[in-house]
Amino acid sequence: MEKQQMLYEGKAKQVFKTENPDLIIIRYKDDATAYNNVKKASIDNKGLLNNEISAIIFGKLHEAGIKTHFIERLNERDQLCRVVKIFPLEFIVRNIIAGSMAKRLDIPEGTKPNNLIIDICYKKDELGDPLINNDHAVALGTATYEELETMYSITRKINEVLIELFKELGITLVDFKIEFGKTLDGEIVLADEISPDTCRLWDIETNEKLDKDRFRRDLGKVKEAYEEILKRLKK
Amino acid sequence: MEKQQMLYEGKAKQVFKTENPDLIIIRYKDDATAYNNVKKASIDNKGLLNNEISAIIFGKLHEAGIKTHFIERLNERDQLCRVVKIFPLEFIVRNIIAGSMAKRLDIPEGTKPNNLIIDICYKKDELGDPLINNDHAVALGTATYEELETMYSITRKINEVLIELFKELGITLVDFKIEFGKTLDGEIVLADEISPDTCRLWDIETNEKLDKDRFRRDLGKVKEAYEEILKRLKK
Repeated sequence: MEKQQMLYEGKAKQVFKTENPDLIIIRYKDDATAYNNVKKASIDNKGLLNNEISAIIFGKLHEAGIKTHFIERLNERDQLCRVVKIFPLEFIVRNIIAGSMAKRLDIPEGTKPNNLIIDICYKKDELGDPLINNDHAVALGTATYEELETMYSITRKINEVLIELFKELGITLVDFKIEFGKTLDGEIVLADEISPDTCRLWDIETNEKLDKDRFRRDLGKVKEAYEEILKRLKK
Repeated sequence: MEKQQMLYEGKAKQVFKTENPDLIIIRYKDDATAYNNVKKASIDNKGLLNNEISAIIFGKLHEAGIKTHFIERLNERDQLCRVVKIFPLEFIVRNIIAGSMAKRLDIPEGTKPNNLIIDICYKKDELGDPLINNDHAVALGTATYEELETMYSITRKINEVLIELFKELGITLVDFKIEFGKTLDGEIVLADEISPDTCRLWDIETNEKLDKDRFRRDLGKVKEAYEEILKRLKK
């Protein structure tokens, strides 16, 4: 399968047409951005690492019965995926409070809530991807109430699978962001990627951060953290 | 019933103990604040107007079967109310999009959504009363999921009653903010006030603003707008 014209370029990925109208190729770039594009850099081989990490995780989710857009990893940087129409929503699962939620609500980072927290944000760079609620999501035309319920339900299932997967690797799944798309035949499936770019992953023993916070917060050894995640996943 | 020691002073009201441990007296001040206390002023007789407006509206809600903390208006500035423990949440109903939601999501003010929108915000001045979702409200310990559902349900009922009430007065109920409290015997009831301080009210013919936006946006004739609302309510 060969890449044809580029359909879209995002902050961390490019999307290409293929000869099959149902399929696209997603190419992982090395670019890293944070704080809504205020901070930018290139991290050597990040694209290769995230391509492989996300492919392994999507494979595990597939084994657990979760439908995704992912078909196969084609090479170091490219993935073959199903064409989907992305819902302009980010679903953020918080098992432990960190990042923007800790800041907005003045809760100490690392606090473990008694209930599962799922945020939805409206994907719109110009607005800074604001937190919204279900009524906003429907009013904005991003999804129906029924579609939202389907996505929340898949999100909770994904969280259960990922918590267990990472626990076996000695990693605490603090939080993660996922996106959904609708296939040409109307099915809602997991799309985008799952990688240290989109998760907070802490070593279970040391609480060392093994994710994009190393970049956001200038902690150094960014690439090494992503390599560590891949190494553990490949064990 | 006489006022005893002051229990609490808010931006627009004072709360006093009475000789009866189940009852408090709420005194309406003339102070007006906006944008989380950045803008402050005193509006002549606002306290008198809001005391009378809120008393009439709470009376109408009582007639419609909605339980509230309100017992009776005692005099120009004071109301007798039941003691409640206030949930630190604002419930905001948006029949038409205006104000902070129009701004946050870049939606033209005056847009009528196809669905009813209810926001909840965490009442905390230091944080700017941020928008939250149900999971946050529970994690913050403000309410249980069941209590939230009760409050949403009462909120929808109140909206139905108020839309009709204001329509009869030639007024469009654009949006409004309410708060709930729990009585000493554990019942969830409407608390706080409903007035032009807490609603957006537009003349149905001219769309003229008859609410606190006249103060927020320096449109002038603030007191006259509140007087107009009271005049129509007393007809």
